[in-house]
Amino acid sequence: MRITISQLNLHIGNFEGNLAKMVAAVETAKSQQADLICFPELAVCGYPARDFFEFDDFILRCQHSVDELRKISHGIGIVVGSPTRNPVAAGKDLYNSAYFLYNGETIGIQHKALLPTYDIFDEYRYFEPATEFKTIEFKGKRIALSICEDIWNVGNENPLYTICPLDEMMHEKPDFILNLSASPFDYAHAETRIQIAKVNVERYKIPMFYANQVGGQTDVIFDGGSLVLSPDGSVFDEMPYFEECLKTYDLEDVVGFSFAQKSGAVGDKPSFAKATAGEQPKNKIQLIHDALVVGIRDYFQKLGFKKAILGLSGGIDSAVTAVLAAKALGPENVRVLLMPSQFSSGHSVDDARQLAETLGIQYDIVAIKPMYDAFEAALAQQFAGQPFNVTEENIQARVRGTLLMAMSNKFGHILLNTTNKSEMSVGYGTLYGDMCGGIAVLGDVYKTEIYELVKYLNKDGEVVPQNTITKPPSAELRPGQKDTDSLPPYEVLDPLLFQYIECRKGPSELIAMGFEEALVKRVLRMVNINEFKREQAAPVIRVSTKAFGMGRRMPIVGKYLS
Amino acid sequence: MRITISQLNLHIGNFEGNLAKMVAAVETAKSQQADLICFPELAVCGYPARDFFEFDDFILRCQHSVDELRKISHGIGIVVGSPTRNPVAAGKDLYNSAYFLYNGETIGIQHKALLPTYDIFDEYRYFEPATEFKTIEFKGKRIALSICEDIWNVGNENPLYTICPLDEMMHEKPDFILNLSASPFDYAHAETRIQIAKVNVERYKIPMFYANQVGGQTDVIFDGGSLVLSPDGSVFDEMPYFEECLKTYDLEDVVGFSFAQKSGAVGDKPSFAKATAGEQPKNKIQLIHDALVVGIRDYFQKLGFKKAILGLSGGIDSAVTAVLAAKALGPENVRVLLMPSQFSSGHSVDDARQLAETLGIQYDIVAIKPMYDAFEAALAQQFAGQPFNVTEENIQARVRGTLLMAMSNKFGHILLNTTNKSEMSVGYGTLYGDMCGGIAVLGDVYKTEIYELVKYLNKDGEVVPQNTITKPPSAELRPGQKDTDSLPPYEVLDPLLFQYIECRKGPSELIAMGFEEALVKRVLRMVNINEFKREQAAPVIRVSTKAFGMGRRMPIVGKYLS
Repeated sequence: MRITISQLNLHIGNFEGNLAKMVAAVETAKSQQADLICFPELAVCGYPARDFFEFDDFILRCQHSVDELRKISHGIGIVVGSPTRNPVAAGKDLYNSAYFLYNGETIGIQHKALLPTYDIFDEYRYFEPATEFKTIEFKGKRIALSICEDIWNVGNENPLYTICPLDEMMHEKPDFILNLSASPFDYAHAETRIQIAKVNVERYKIPMFYANQVGGQTDVIFDGGSLVLSPDGSVFDEMPYFEECLKTYDLEDVVGFSFAQKSGAVGDKPSFAKATAGEQPKNKIQLIHDALVVGIRDYFQKLGFKKAILGLSGGIDSAVTAVLAAKALGPENVRVLLMPSQFSSGHSVDDARQLAETLGIQYDIVAIKPMYDAFEAALAQQFAGQPFNVTEENIQARVRGTLLMAMSNKFGHILLNTTNKSEMSVGYGTLYGDMCGGIAVLGDVYKTEIYELVKYLNKDGEVVPQNTITKPPSAELRPGQKDTDSLPPYEVLDPLLFQYIECRKGPSELIAMGFEEALVKRVLRMVNINEFKREQAAPVIRVSTKAFGMGRRMPIVGKYLS
Repeated sequence: MRITISQLNLHIGNFEGNLAKMVAAVETAKSQQADLICFPELAVCGYPARDFFEFDDFILRCQHSVDELRKISHGIGIVVGSPTRNPVAAGKDLYNSAYFLYNGETIGIQHKALLPTYDIFDEYRYFEPATEFKTIEFKGKRIALSICEDIWNVGNENPLYTICPLDEMMHEKPDFILNLSASPFDYAHAETRIQIAKVNVERYKIPMFYANQVGGQTDVIFDGGSLVLSPDGSVFDEMPYFEECLKTYDLEDVVGFSFAQKSGAVGDKPSFAKATAGEQPKNKIQLIHDALVVGIRDYFQKLGFKKAILGLSGGIDSAVTAVLAAKALGPENVRVLLMPSQFSSGHSVDDARQLAETLGIQYDIVAIKPMYDAFEAALAQQFAGQPFNVTEENIQARVRGTLLMAMSNKFGHILLNTTNKSEMSVGYGTLYGDMCGGIAVLGDVYKTEIYELVKYLNKDGEVVPQNTITKPPSAELRPGQKDTDSLPPYEVLDPLLFQYIECRKGPSELIAMGFEEALVKRVLRMVNINEFKREQAAPVIRVSTKAFGMGRRMPIVGKYLS
């Protein structure tokens, strides 16, 4: 039996586009003599479709796509994810389902049982969990069909769940596992995903074919990395990350394959720590880099935009954003404004200009002093006798935001936000100023990680100027200002933020870990009192296990640790 | 037996504050010879605490509050909502629970079974559903203890759920039902809540005591309206909306009471359509008005702010917002800016000034032309040869946003956003301009409803000037501009938006209802392509059954109906 995995970049609600991609993939699979092609979870509508699921019309259009695929299933089995109606009145109205289509018929449907409802996931908002599990017989083979999270409770060891769907199917002695996924990227997830696949296969001793979605859906990025595993837990193949891929595998090859054979390391057990022969390399910074590039590219492509604009300050965050944008969209589609204030250091403009020239992107220099002066004059009466303070800093940031948005409105460039995760955490940024933008490219990357990212960008020759990297970070909104005037050094701040945000450690745990009590109190308070700013921030491209946005839902009027 | 209901305005994460209120209520109940006092759902931490539940420290502090209440339970039963740990490894880590404390002991705990996971609710994100249901014996009475949604699946008729918790308890023959709720306001909800309470009581023929939370939690407003129902379904008492309340009831009085007795209408069945004697009046516009006032007041009070600022344009939305703010915070705490542009009509400033003087609020006039001119000059080279378009309109709106935020930053006033729901739906507003603000007061009120609201505000004499009400709505950002240049008339637009947003009708259903096809397509497209703006909008005070924000989660890169 020949099995095709189609790893696709799907677009939420773009029924025509998604269907066209799947029809083309079916044609290719047929030309490769495949018996069966497998698409990702909820492929007809893209994932996550969120509250579109509450519209009857949306579900009807999903069903229409399934009908169209059924029509072309003559001679080939097509396995595709789609929502289906729950025929029973009790419980949620929909299932998250996998259709098995063949010869113009639906020969099986398996619903999803384990519905992730944590972090960015809201599946129990829409779907009823499956309670029935049956294998599907196809061309003399028994197939255990499963959807994403359904393989993440192996032997009921995941505390979130009380049922293990594959355990329920094993008395039927399936020949292999098919899994349809929409498993999102974070920099640690590909490793975890392979581990969980291996644990499944080692438990059931049958091969697994795992088809994942790829590409960016605003904030959430899917990395692909679809998998084929042999019965001994060896990775027969892992598809590349962040790009579409279609490959056809011979089941017999996969069954006969073992880790020892591929790696040549006879007697070795597969190690989770390093990639085996079939696997993709997993370097954290490279993964983050690639995810950000695809996140930018797909945000523009899926919204129908081509061109980006951003403010280039001479600092490291905007420099890195500009390089990533040029990679994602082409330098000809990136334009920058250099907007010095009276407090900008002389070489800020030079550094920014040097980067723009290196990248070959269009740049303009617009000094902000005339607008700043006009605001100060307009408010002179109200502000009489008041000292220069954060108000004046914010006016400068908002003048810049207004200039960038004016360029965006006039020429159709979409503004990229350059805020990093450290700033976003502690609210070190101006709402409606430097927090403007359609998407926050670095909003899930801590400042200390940005220094690693810049090394990666400069690995084959200097792109980001050395001076941009080595000078102390500064907003340059008052004379001689440095970030460390208001914040702890990033080497101190970032590990604390990581423990609080990603690992959800509370104050006593943080102090027990060795963080200074006064620092803990100060930093946690900064994080919590700035929830109102993050509520209005641009969506953040998610690369970590806990990004701001849908994955972290915090009260604004909360009084906890604030 | 004497039972006290304590309807409290709780503050998320403010453990000391919430505990102090409950301790005081216990003292009052004791002084009223109560046998039992009942607090709302999750009262120790306030509702909705969202992802604070993911912090161990937060749960420990909830437990600490329960411990403190247990200490003062000598001689009085205290029923209070708190998260508790799920001792079993499988399933979610927490339960949403009701503690029954008495004489220094926990004499019962009932967990919640029906976990709302729709609209603004995310309970399955945190909680495991209860599977055990037992009544609690207290002073010779059996009590059916239940939490909020647990009474919303009477006889399993709610399609969302598969279990009816009270049905499970009835074989133990309880004497009455206690329900701890955090049931949020929308303008139709008090009516529905009474209906569901009546249906329960009519099924089980025992009294119900229902304690609800009250007050604003940023976007979500709780209206209180706690209930006492007699065994025949009569409303013995409904507590007032939008204010704290404590009352002690004699169980025997409630049991002996019937609808006929109270209303004097012998032989009448209670009518759901009009309030019976024990009920509060339910006028939609008055409810919206009161909810908005409490929403503003609690947003400021809970964040520790006193003063508000807003831009007063002479139009109806900012006028209504100013009146509501003056009611919520006192006129001495509201300040407004009048910011005419070269396109403002002469009487816009007059109308705004007249309102400010009527309300007795401080106002300043700051013309925006100097800043606007400075922006146009700064971008003259880039914009050379380009016609005046929406860019220039947006610059004006952003200059206003910057002026307001500068006042906010300098003097600590919090900016109120004045956008209405019609504009917010179709994206008729400037991001970082008139969309600025800490909270959107009218973001869940359609323009046509604002005209009703203004009638209510003027019912005892003109507050909002007649000219503000009668002139055609205009953004006044270009010569002679009217809203109807860009949008259908609001009488046409609003009913269509209501069907799409509140009722989730799709295009074919809308056309079948009689809306013109071209209009449907145009309006739905406007709604969907502007998701990126709403993503960065201020939180909206929720008054309808479907508000923008947490209750409506839409993809940004979605291509559906766009």
